[in-house]
Amino acid sequence: MSTKPAIGFCGLGAMGFGMATHLVKSGYAVTGFDVYAPTLEKFKAAGGIPSTSLSDSAKEKEYYICMVATAQQAQTAIFGDEGILKGLPKGATLLLCSTVPSAYAKSVQKELKDVGREDVLFIDAPVSGGAIRAADGSLSIMAGASPAAFEKGKWLLEELSAPAKLFIVEGGVGAGSNMKMVHQVLAAIHILAVSEAFGFAARLGLNGKDVREAVIESQAWSWMFENRSVRTLGEDYFPGASAVLIIIKDTGIITSMARSLGFSTPLCSIAEQVYFSALDRGWGTNDDAGIVRLWTADPVSNIQTKLSDEDKKAKLDLVINLLSGIHLCAAAESIAFAKHIGLPLPQLYELAIDAAGGSAMFKELGAKMIPILEGKSGESGGDLSALAEKLTSAINEAQAIRCPLYLGNGALNLLAQAGKDVDLGSLLNLYAGR
Amino acid sequence: MSTKPAIGFCGLGAMGFGMATHLVKSGYAVTGFDVYAPTLEKFKAAGGIPSTSLSDSAKEKEYYICMVATAQQAQTAIFGDEGILKGLPKGATLLLCSTVPSAYAKSVQKELKDVGREDVLFIDAPVSGGAIRAADGSLSIMAGASPAAFEKGKWLLEELSAPAKLFIVEGGVGAGSNMKMVHQVLAAIHILAVSEAFGFAARLGLNGKDVREAVIESQAWSWMFENRSVRTLGEDYFPGASAVLIIIKDTGIITSMARSLGFSTPLCSIAEQVYFSALDRGWGTNDDAGIVRLWTADPVSNIQTKLSDEDKKAKLDLVINLLSGIHLCAAAESIAFAKHIGLPLPQLYELAIDAAGGSAMFKELGAKMIPILEGKSGESGGDLSALAEKLTSAINEAQAIRCPLYLGNGALNLLAQAGKDVDLGSLLNLYAGR
Repeated sequence: MSTKPAIGFCGLGAMGFGMATHLVKSGYAVTGFDVYAPTLEKFKAAGGIPSTSLSDSAKEKEYYICMVATAQQAQTAIFGDEGILKGLPKGATLLLCSTVPSAYAKSVQKELKDVGREDVLFIDAPVSGGAIRAADGSLSIMAGASPAAFEKGKWLLEELSAPAKLFIVEGGVGAGSNMKMVHQVLAAIHILAVSEAFGFAARLGLNGKDVREAVIESQAWSWMFENRSVRTLGEDYFPGASAVLIIIKDTGIITSMARSLGFSTPLCSIAEQVYFSALDRGWGTNDDAGIVRLWTADPVSNIQTKLSDEDKKAKLDLVINLLSGIHLCAAAESIAFAKHIGLPLPQLYELAIDAAGGSAMFKELGAKMIPILEGKSGESGGDLSALAEKLTSAINEAQAIRCPLYLGNGALNLLAQAGKDVDLGSLLNLYAGR
Repeated sequence: MSTKPAIGFCGLGAMGFGMATHLVKSGYAVTGFDVYAPTLEKFKAAGGIPSTSLSDSAKEKEYYICMVATAQQAQTAIFGDEGILKGLPKGATLLLCSTVPSAYAKSVQKELKDVGREDVLFIDAPVSGGAIRAADGSLSIMAGASPAAFEKGKWLLEELSAPAKLFIVEGGVGAGSNMKMVHQVLAAIHILAVSEAFGFAARLGLNGKDVREAVIESQAWSWMFENRSVRTLGEDYFPGASAVLIIIKDTGIITSMARSLGFSTPLCSIAEQVYFSALDRGWGTNDDAGIVRLWTADPVSNIQTKLSDEDKKAKLDLVINLLSGIHLCAAAESIAFAKHIGLPLPQLYELAIDAAGGSAMFKELGAKMIPILEGKSGESGGDLSALAEKLTSAINEAQAIRCPLYLGNGALNLLAQAGKDVDLGSLLNLYAGR
């Protein structure tokens, strides 16, 4: 582009603020709207143009990015009386980067037409990667739109994403949101797994710092674990960076979509119930890393380990076994769901291995699951009985000390259901219905 | 019997006290031991002979009944330095009525031999039916023993049980405990279901009394609901009649046995995790009906319903739908487990329909499950899609109001896993492994 176009932006939360200020740093004039005044001041200090009116923030903007928290907020922001559409000029490009149900993304497209604003080029473009990558313009983006909209708006998606991390998902508006949804199956399960693992570890007498170190170097690694564990160790929950209410919104999208299709998402549903119980404790606006408080009131980084080196190693192994088993089943749940709704599996794989849903198990075993689901592998592949046995050792110990492991038990029951000679094929088959 | 023999008894808890005093009322001289002194006084007042020594309580007793809470307690009581065996005369009959792992019951038999007390006739005889039926001698009893032991002790089992409610389970010592275990699959799930249903109802704005009335007359009836709901409405949890720790012991027996066999018990495992979380709240010695406090701090019988009659009816239906779906899957989980370990299914059916595991769903659909599992029914039988749809309506509403439904979601995921045309056959097939 020869001259940099002005951009409108609404929703300056943890992710949105990073995205908007990244664009500012890249030389764009960004007019930002948020309902929270202190954020607007911070945005101004970062070189942005603050706006206290949604319609004003959209005036004369050929490009507009909506990064609010929910579909409900997006609906008001876009179509409200003094909303974005009021200000948005003819032929502008509108990006919706929030995580919303694909049905909602499609409804925006339809409503634009219904209200006589077919001229607006709409891109369904949810993102992943966390606040840091938002701020340095290296997000993963899953986008669905018409070819015309991509022609006009692709450069902006590229500004926000890392090279090779912009995924144009076939299928038009809604396809981006569907891809985000199946990605969030991983996120929703992995987030609770972080707290479940730290909680279990605390009751085993392990210090959180030792747990973090051991997990990150092991096959139990996940992006969420590496990311959230910093806040777990620092008790940085108030508000932290990602509220329980956010993952509740995402699990809601997943499980309600699954229900409407008659598809089972057992681990995601278990996670959702535990998130609801965290909400009942009054932790909705706290960081999701704080869910560890369901297991322990003491800070996990303060625990004085009184174990011998050998015992400590054995107990750390149990935590690793727990996480590995959960992540394995999360990978199956996500990939099987993607298959069920007809998404391209290799694209999900490429996306998730380097986004917030990534895990070592997904990377290693997800790669083997895809050819099985695509019917390209004659073998059912990958004997899982060793992993099942390891998970069993963790569950046995948890039962002995009466420690709830919601996901761990859910995962082990899935592996048991898959049968004695559990392998990737029989595990995936659990999701196929009959 | 011409003269009534003296009987020794240890473990005068809610169930044991009822059993022992029933024997007193029936004219037997019963010497009772308990570690809790006030209970001994109460027992004396009821006509029993109190004893402060286990070995003394067994002296010159041709019959002895052990009704302690756990296998660990039984082990100490029977084999401890000053235990039952110390006092028990040669050729006496020993009934173990506690709920214990079948492996433990077998180990008692073996250890009797190892310590040179093969002369003792040992009967593995867990019971069900609640404190009231214990006290009037109309319990359900599942007994496994040698023919010689039954010959000598059957009359005593008959004294404690209702006619037709004494189940002699083929397979010797251990078979009674196995039957109790699969029965407790129902109990373990139904107990949490009571609290989940009342908790959901409370959040829907329903008064607990209305809920009780509606459920008891519906297909959502269960023995546990009818029994526990009295205590839920009266907040009679301190200590109530059946502690959370008791059902935790039973779920532990179930899930650890299932794990060792590679069998899946998804709903029972979910229930166990929630019981552990109740324990974390400090409710271990409270009545299990008090688990409703995970959902609501207010007494459910105090809720002022502000709903129209129509709305009230619709919301009560949601609660009924929730319970029916859970009870359906509980029936499948229990019966499939019984099949897996080779227990006679018709006997389980006869036992459970009139014991603490009973439910309207078990009675109606359990009867249809058995011929399917026995291969006697060509059809897979009983379309369940209407029940699945009703359960879905409850889950949708719960999600909208962010109410955790651990079991409800677990059950719906099982029905979804069973496939689009879910029927009894496809549901049971989930438990078959592959």
